[in-house]
Amino acid sequence: MLLYDCRTAPSPRRVRIFLAEKAIEIPLREVDLRHGEQFGSEFRAITEDVTVPVLELDDGQRLCDIIGICRYFEEVHPQPALFGSTPLERALIDGVQRWCDREGFYAVMDAFRNSTPGLKNRALPGPADYPQLAALAERSRSRIERFFERLDAMLGRSAYVAGPRFSIADITAMVSVDFAGWIKMTPAAEQTRLHRWLQAVRSRPSAAA
Amino acid sequence: MLLYDCRTAPSPRRVRIFLAEKAIEIPLREVDLRHGEQFGSEFRAITEDVTVPVLELDDGQRLCDIIGICRYFEEVHPQPALFGSTPLERALIDGVQRWCDREGFYAVMDAFRNSTPGLKNRALPGPADYPQLAALAERSRSRIERFFERLDAMLGRSAYVAGPRFSIADITAMVSVDFAGWIKMTPAAEQTRLHRWLQAVRSRPSAAA
Repeated sequence: MLLYDCRTAPSPRRVRIFLAEKAIEIPLREVDLRHGEQFGSEFRAITEDVTVPVLELDDGQRLCDIIGICRYFEEVHPQPALFGSTPLERALIDGVQRWCDREGFYAVMDAFRNSTPGLKNRALPGPADYPQLAALAERSRSRIERFFERLDAMLGRSAYVAGPRFSIADITAMVSVDFAGWIKMTPAAEQTRLHRWLQAVRSRPSAAA
Repeated sequence: MLLYDCRTAPSPRRVRIFLAEKAIEIPLREVDLRHGEQFGSEFRAITEDVTVPVLELDDGQRLCDIIGICRYFEEVHPQPALFGSTPLERALIDGVQRWCDREGFYAVMDAFRNSTPGLKNRALPGPADYPQLAALAERSRSRIERFFERLDAMLGRSAYVAGPRFSIADITAMVSVDFAGWIKMTPAAEQTRLHRWLQAVRSRPSAAA
């Protein structure tokens, strides 16, 4: 088993944290995104998505989706459960994870990719070039503000974003907040519940993964 | 149990099809999106997202996410399995479903909401108003073309989008293709594998749900 990884990128970090929470160790292979290794023929043969993470199983089959990879490990190594234990927990965690992904992670990605000078024509990950849309970067920043606000409100109702226990939704949320730091957006000082949670999740050993 | 629904909207249709595949019948309550019922105080008390579907459980707890709702029913009524049966199947289906959602469903939503005269300032679903971005609508149309191309290629490798069996990924993909019809985008005639699959999934009784 092998995980194609990039130490500095937010997407594979989500998987590394998930693995650390489950105390699973697998070999990592670094892909040098900064110098465009993902666009070379060797990596294109691994995945046409030209993105990391990619999990290669022992039979050569590959999984190229963050949540798909995490789901695989949840199935083969169920404890601690990070997708929930009961039908209702699983439903809530899937829903909150999706919300954090859409309103947090992808909003930050849109803001970052549509405004960073080094990413001209790379407004979306994947094999196709798309020009940056400055107005989309701007709109995304406003979405991220709302993401912080609502996260703070949610964390007033439960210790973790999808309930009383740490879950994959917390991983998505924490990595999204950290990723927002790349575009100099951080939760406001008065979002104290969000800060309390951030301190808690960032101090878990897995956060260093 | 009660599902807040809207007969004409693509999002709740995904849940209705899922329920039909599992032969689960639950009461539906129509929300009149066309006349803005979702923005009224009564529906805002149901969900601050002001979107359908919403599943209300017998204890009053509510699930407001399409996939979260489907996951709940998969857990309490596992057969037929629409999220896969083995760890690898579950991982692949989660990944392909997410890809169809992002590159299909949300791309169509962006193209539609950012170009439809009646949706000025409603470029995103949810409680906040966002102005339309014509350039985003245009970019999304190009994304949808690639979605059709890749779907056609995927369907050359397996009978259904995430493998040999019908899954939730097929529901997301089919509803996305149908939704693309709203902005007059349809698969090209030469995408024969995509047309073969479309005919198969559209002729399942669940497609009428």
